[in-house]
Amino acid sequence: MTTAKNKYAIGLHIWVNEDSGHFLGKGRIQLLENIKSTGSITKGAGLMKMSYRQAWQMVQDMNSRADQPLVEKILGGKGGGGAIVTDAGNKAIRLFYGLEEKLSKYATQLSEKIKL
Amino acid sequence: MTTAKNKYAIGLHIWVNEDSGHFLGKGRIQLLENIKSTGSITKGAGLMKMSYRQAWQMVQDMNSRADQPLVEKILGGKGGGGAIVTDAGNKAIRLFYGLEEKLSKYATQLSEKIKL
Repeated sequence: MTTAKNKYAIGLHIWVNEDSGHFLGKGRIQLLENIKSTGSITKGAGLMKMSYRQAWQMVQDMNSRADQPLVEKILGGKGGGGAIVTDAGNKAIRLFYGLEEKLSKYATQLSEKIKL
Repeated sequence: MTTAKNKYAIGLHIWVNEDSGHFLGKGRIQLLENIKSTGSITKGAGLMKMSYRQAWQMVQDMNSRADQPLVEKILGGKGGGGAIVTDAGNKAIRLFYGLEEKLSKYATQLSEKIKL
């Protein structure tokens, strides 16, 4: 149910650009979360039907745009190593959802005043 | 040149939903503006490589979701009549850009605090 007051709602998509290009969007955040949950770039990419190559390029691009790497490879060991999301990577995930939440809240406030 | 403070920028897309579906987005606002500048749904649609049929469906959908029609056909006269953007339609255009501006301003504020 919706009252007349809330007839309209504002939807939004956000992303974060760095100086020279795209830095973080929903897909990249999803990739970080998948790497975090699987401990592997290959497996993390697989969860979203992305190739390892694509995912690794995305990771390298993100790493190069942040002051510190968001994902690090762990070399060696059984199974040929994996990958971890760093503290900076976790911060990036929280940052993105935080921005989304703040902007959505403001959008909700604005939408309550819409009358057409 | 960019200072460290402004290294990151937040990008956003917005749209407005009505109770039961999509109401206003960048494309629909563009269509309203094109109808306004050409005085015709056919010509307005043509400016954005849209068919009359698509544009007319879009107009009908917008009209049905607003309290008052955003576009009205003017029947008869030489050339078979045209279309005008109503006061409510002009209000919708201003509303959309106003929402975009307010949310973008807030996004800029938020982006100044990003550090990764």
